Amino acid sequence: MAYRIGVIGGGQLARMMVPPAVHLGVEITVLAEAVGSSARLAASEVGDYHDAETVLAFARDVDVVTFDHEHVPQDVLTALVEAGVAVHPAPAALAVAQDKIVMRRRLTELGLPVPEWAEVRDAADLAGFLAEHGGRAVVKTPRGGYDGKGVRVVDDPAGADDWFAVLAEHGEDAVLLVEELVPFERELAQLVARRPSGEIAVWPLVETVQRDGVCAEVTAPAPRSEPELQQAAEQIARRVADELGVTGVLAVELFETADGRLLVNELAMRPHNTGHWSIDGAATSQFEQHLRAVLDLPLGDTGAHHPWSVMVNVLGGPATGTMADRLPALMAAEPGAKVHDYGKDPRPGRKVGHVTTTGAELADVLARARAAVRFFED
Amino acid sequence: MAYRIGVIGGGQLARMMVPPAVHLGVEITVLAEAVGSSARLAASEVGDYHDAETVLAFARDVDVVTFDHEHVPQDVLTALVEAGVAVHPAPAALAVAQDKIVMRRRLTELGLPVPEWAEVRDAADLAGFLAEHGGRAVVKTPRGGYDGKGVRVVDDPAGADDWFAVLAEHGEDAVLLVEELVPFERELAQLVARRPSGEIAVWPLVETVQRDGVCAEVTAPAPRSEPELQQAAEQIARRVADELGVTGVLAVELFETADGRLLVNELAMRPHNTGHWSIDGAATSQFEQHLRAVLDLPLGDTGAHHPWSVMVNVLGGPATGTMADRLPALMAAEPGAKVHDYGKDPRPGRKVGHVTTTGAELADVLARARAAVRFFED
Repeated sequence: MAYRIGVIGGGQLARMMVPPAVHLGVEITVLAEAVGSSARLAASEVGDYHDAETVLAFARDVDVVTFDHEHVPQDVLTALVEAGVAVHPAPAALAVAQDKIVMRRRLTELGLPVPEWAEVRDAADLAGFLAEHGGRAVVKTPRGGYDGKGVRVVDDPAGADDWFAVLAEHGEDAVLLVEELVPFERELAQLVARRPSGEIAVWPLVETVQRDGVCAEVTAPAPRSEPELQQAAEQIARRVADELGVTGVLAVELFETADGRLLVNELAMRPHNTGHWSIDGAATSQFEQHLRAVLDLPLGDTGAHHPWSVMVNVLGGPATGTMADRLPALMAAEPGAKVHDYGKDPRPGRKVGHVTTTGAELADVLARARAAVRFFED
Repeated sequence: MAYRIGVIGGGQLARMMVPPAVHLGVEITVLAEAVGSSARLAASEVGDYHDAETVLAFARDVDVVTFDHEHVPQDVLTALVEAGVAVHPAPAALAVAQDKIVMRRRLTELGLPVPEWAEVRDAADLAGFLAEHGGRAVVKTPRGGYDGKGVRVVDDPAGADDWFAVLAEHGEDAVLLVEELVPFERELAQLVARRPSGEIAVWPLVETVQRDGVCAEVTAPAPRSEPELQQAAEQIARRVADELGVTGVLAVELFETADGRLLVNELAMRPHNTGHWSIDGAATSQFEQHLRAVLDLPLGDTGAHHPWSVMVNVLGGPATGTMADRLPALMAAEPGAKVHDYGKDPRPGRKVGHVTTTGAELADVLARARAAVRFFED
């Protein structure tokens, strides 16, 4: 019997699980939100992941359920587990990725380094935090944010009043997360994968560049990453994976401070934008590894093919036409660029694809990736 | 608009075109022979490729038609072209790959090095050829052979009588191809891709080991391949591609003789078993390149990731159970092995998958590939 994986969510992460599934002979099925999803190339069904009946029916013919995003409600996840379905990552682990306050609390309990943070319930709370942190801070909605959405820098105690109001309106607990504005030198990300049986695989630490809160560029490995830095990042990610019982791919986004400390910024329990370079740059991509991990198969070699890999996101896409229209010019100019088109309509700021380059000289690899992506940008 | 490719034939070659299509955002549709084909993961229709109406209907919604095999009849190909469908490779080129006598004739006309050959119509013809070639020769059916089928070594003028009889019975021209038994040192293969506009991309020359007429093992690049040898092979393949107007991937299988000559053994105008290593071992795989070439997109970098890549076929598959059953043990033993499972039922001698390894030391890379494949063999 072939292994059968069901993926909830039809975005580009589900889409990019399809190629390794084809190669490994894993049957993959996707529960997409809408017709014409990014992952429509896989056998896909359309249904609402908030509905337990829909998800239970979807799960009937697969060996394990996993995810393209972390938005499936806990009651639906619990219903799956109670019905005997293997769910990876498990609901208890996912809960930590679903709510940023839960995440901060768990990381703090574990003694892992995080920015200073607090829960705030109103402008007065926020004023207190601002007063103690130089008058500026980052406010985050605990749930549902991604790609810079639900994240805001404030310097005014009233700067999150609209969010408090919306939460209250929706009958949700009107609590926001506030964090110190970390004066970081740069952002890093440590990607690992963990099997239910405990085995962990670790990719090289990478440097990430964010633009407007969205991952724009990733360099693997992170330049100037001394063995101590790589080890520190790895130790944090291993600790998170083990202590939270994460199964599948785990991305730990980190701030590196001027004095060389690492602070955990965000967690994601699924393949992550900071790991896309591994499709073309590593022996085992994060997508293949995720399939292996959630099936509890032994993990693959995470070594890089070349000294440097650079991934640049296509944000928004061409002003006119589609990415496909630009391929001839790009391919003629950059025969070594690996293009990934997510099959989405261009829209300002939207992640519609990415390009990866690899090679021996960082400056050259970076220049080629940036040059390639420019073909999609005007 | 996304590019749309239709592939006739639902075998593993069509299947392995799916991953690069997903990444490039190319929409791929497969016309498969039967339900449950190897390429069933792609959007697939089931229909008879001998039927022009079926194939024309299939071609209606794609930009270009290409192939998983070379068995589509010329009248069907001609009907496609007459209906305005882009067909790559074109019928005239494919005709040379479809009939081994046509192939030998064209290569001879081009002055390319081939084994001595003749057309034989009966045992008397064959006796004449045997007498002039040391009493032994290779007889081949001109059409429909693959993986050692339709190929036989004879030392008796009556040794092909059954084939003459079958051809006559089917109302076909009762002609067989007979060739000298080349005393080769080893077998090599040169893979190239050519666009309609003429651009050609060349992968490194590889060494192949056949077992019972079936490709068993491929080493890239071919060990001990001096620049002169690589150049000679490349020159032959470029000449074939240009002169025959091949579009897409072209594999030229070669004999290397003791005195260092190269003779063309077989041609294939599609991704080929001797190029499977490129999926995991090269910047651009033969499957991605085939899609690019038939869409007339600029070709990708063919450079290898590592000094050595070795591909070993899984022939027959496990005696009990499936390849999937053996994955845990294989993956635990060989974390760097790239496993490809074609989703076919095991059957003696059948190509059901392959494994590729890469690295810096040939002996190690070979040993790991062979060790990995053994997990599928008992």
